[in-house]
Amino acid sequence: MVDQAIEASRRVREPAQRRSLLRAGLGLGGALAVGAPRLARAAIAAPPADPDWSQSVGPGIGDITYGMPSTFEADMIRRNVPWLTASPESSISFTPLQYQQGIITPSGVFFERYHAGRPTVDPAGHRLMIHGMVDRPLVFTMADIKRLPAENRIHFIECPANGGMEWRAAQLNSLQYTHGMIGCAEWTGLKLSTLLAEAGLQTRAKWLLVEGADGAHMARSLPIEKALDDVLVVYGQNGEALRPEQGYPLRLIVPGWQGNVNIKWLRRIQAGDQPWYTREETSKYTELMPDGHARGFTWPIYAKSVITFPCPEMPVKGPGIYEIRGLAWSGNGKIRQVDISTDGGINWMRARLHDPVLSKALTRFTAEWRWDGKPAFLQSRAVDDTGVVQPTLAELRAVRGTNPVYNNNSIQTWQVKPDGSVFNVQLS
Amino acid sequence: MVDQAIEASRRVREPAQRRSLLRAGLGLGGALAVGAPRLARAAIAAPPADPDWSQSVGPGIGDITYGMPSTFEADMIRRNVPWLTASPESSISFTPLQYQQGIITPSGVFFERYHAGRPTVDPAGHRLMIHGMVDRPLVFTMADIKRLPAENRIHFIECPANGGMEWRAAQLNSLQYTHGMIGCAEWTGLKLSTLLAEAGLQTRAKWLLVEGADGAHMARSLPIEKALDDVLVVYGQNGEALRPEQGYPLRLIVPGWQGNVNIKWLRRIQAGDQPWYTREETSKYTELMPDGHARGFTWPIYAKSVITFPCPEMPVKGPGIYEIRGLAWSGNGKIRQVDISTDGGINWMRARLHDPVLSKALTRFTAEWRWDGKPAFLQSRAVDDTGVVQPTLAELRAVRGTNPVYNNNSIQTWQVKPDGSVFNVQLS
Repeated sequence: MVDQAIEASRRVREPAQRRSLLRAGLGLGGALAVGAPRLARAAIAAPPADPDWSQSVGPGIGDITYGMPSTFEADMIRRNVPWLTASPESSISFTPLQYQQGIITPSGVFFERYHAGRPTVDPAGHRLMIHGMVDRPLVFTMADIKRLPAENRIHFIECPANGGMEWRAAQLNSLQYTHGMIGCAEWTGLKLSTLLAEAGLQTRAKWLLVEGADGAHMARSLPIEKALDDVLVVYGQNGEALRPEQGYPLRLIVPGWQGNVNIKWLRRIQAGDQPWYTREETSKYTELMPDGHARGFTWPIYAKSVITFPCPEMPVKGPGIYEIRGLAWSGNGKIRQVDISTDGGINWMRARLHDPVLSKALTRFTAEWRWDGKPAFLQSRAVDDTGVVQPTLAELRAVRGTNPVYNNNSIQTWQVKPDGSVFNVQLS
Repeated sequence: MVDQAIEASRRVREPAQRRSLLRAGLGLGGALAVGAPRLARAAIAAPPADPDWSQSVGPGIGDITYGMPSTFEADMIRRNVPWLTASPESSISFTPLQYQQGIITPSGVFFERYHAGRPTVDPAGHRLMIHGMVDRPLVFTMADIKRLPAENRIHFIECPANGGMEWRAAQLNSLQYTHGMIGCAEWTGLKLSTLLAEAGLQTRAKWLLVEGADGAHMARSLPIEKALDDVLVVYGQNGEALRPEQGYPLRLIVPGWQGNVNIKWLRRIQAGDQPWYTREETSKYTELMPDGHARGFTWPIYAKSVITFPCPEMPVKGPGIYEIRGLAWSGNGKIRQVDISTDGGINWMRARLHDPVLSKALTRFTAEWRWDGKPAFLQSRAVDDTGVVQPTLAELRAVRGTNPVYNNNSIQTWQVKPDGSVFNVQLS
């Protein structure tokens, strides 16, 4: 088979002959110039056979008014861990990051987290109330909200429990489960500051209570500086209305801050002069430190990254040249650089960042890797434009101990074994 | 009702009292400062009643592994015009641009165009052959292709027949039908130049034939300069695999060039020294000029824009302040500016462009409009960074007559009647 010949040629890494390409002066990109995967001369004995689908007429227009993925892509689904929470109504599902292309997470597989299940909210009956320390308490319909000046932004949302199972030891051999509580989307809505201006926010207001319409009335306190900076109230995701799992018809986007603050099914905003210390910011979403104190209000997601290929679900197939691929993000701004190690953090090389590099959004990175077939330990380390460097888990543990569940932004290690299989490991 | 009071206050356009906001020194955006829709003081007598969905526990995690839109969003679908083509296997469906948020078109409603229906291609059996004027003819499996250095880009695809029905007269009172043969997505794949380098493109090769695996073997000629510039061979769309309607598992993206050149189900690339003059570039996709000659190879989409709100499907509700919203695009680069007229092109005001403004991608624009309830004629006019100004239909007709079907990038006029309804009209 020609394909096998191609694969074999990769294994011996025979240099490609680029005479004619170079003579033509083609503008080859840097990645290729330094040695992309190469195919040696492989003459085609005969073209591939004409499959059935090339000799027939397929279904026409009109049968599918809202399209779905190919049936061959049945693995591209959200998955959950039944034992992770007390009930499915307070559980979480994980984005299949191992299959995600680009920086936009498909809305169909964007991770979910519920505190009282997923409410079915009728947009005609939904209201957003703004009250408290405002001059004009207001109730908005969805039509009111959509009429106000609109904004569109691409941002990630990450649950601070992402990686929480990893504090003590490597738990699950799966990228989807170690890092899948994250997604990135284009959000459409309006600035929260626009709504607050309509209501006449008072100067003594220093905090907002933001509350959902779900049965849990999920609520968190939000400092006014953040609320007036870049917080959005959104009704659109990836070009269409929010999905029910994502807060349809209205949710908060608090760019770069932990997911639970991005209140879904948003129904109430109360302005006050101090935080509310709700259940979710006292008994939950705090970090028990080694000295017995609990840290609260740890909102921003710090610089973080993970290699998405290779990973446990995406092993490698024999020695040769590969493109290591991954995602990096920071809740404090843009990703400035990502470094890659293939020997567990001894040597590092700079990864290439792919445009667009957006603030508080997933950023794609890639790096070439020539695998010799020996055991390897792959790591990525992100640096954001505030200078924060993604820490090792040992560095995090030295400060925070092993009690916390939240805010694990440490470097992930994937061990590649000689057979190409990939494992979630922690280096001492 | 409080909501009615809010609405009434808008109608009389009573200035909002912003005392406390101004005293607080809030950084209000320009759009708001110059007079966003305003709500006067409206005290809340009582908070909204607690609906059922706020007093119950909803379904938990695990029931939906791949999410879908809310059942309340049933209008967000592709639609087709049965009489437009000879059969549904060679027809087209239209993107509901009137409901699209942001710049990313949801994959589920991305417009389709088939020449022999939609083939069901098994990715395990799919091959891409590169042959002709190359040193090493090659056959690639999907695994081969996914292993090569990856690229991610946001680009629109537009069928050159978009607006084709409008050459002679305003035909259909619908934004979806006048402009819906377009979509914009994040594409993931690799540079075509990477594949050509693997095959060893010869210097005498000046053209490529690119061919699909559908029953029509849809094929077009592509000049080598474009092929080596920014053309991509992609397998991902909006974070997941291409949808079947969009060429699963592999298609060409020819940024900014008319849709039919973006060959779907891509199976063959042949390098040669002259164009092939295929059926689709001779009997179709040419323009019959007034003097009887036909123009061919009119590839790029020129600067174009359309107002998406108000539009026939999205009327206005009484006099007051609105945000005019729309989309602009150019196949030659970035959108530099968009101007808005509400009096049929006599007076123009500059619209605000929303980040990100990307090359050969949809760009969002907005402008404030105070409607006095009198008849209005809304228009948008795009200018791209090559200096091309979107023409009027009269200007296009003066050059090209009324025979062409393709490449109508003219200014669209929406007439707003005193009752708020919106109509597709052509001004003399």
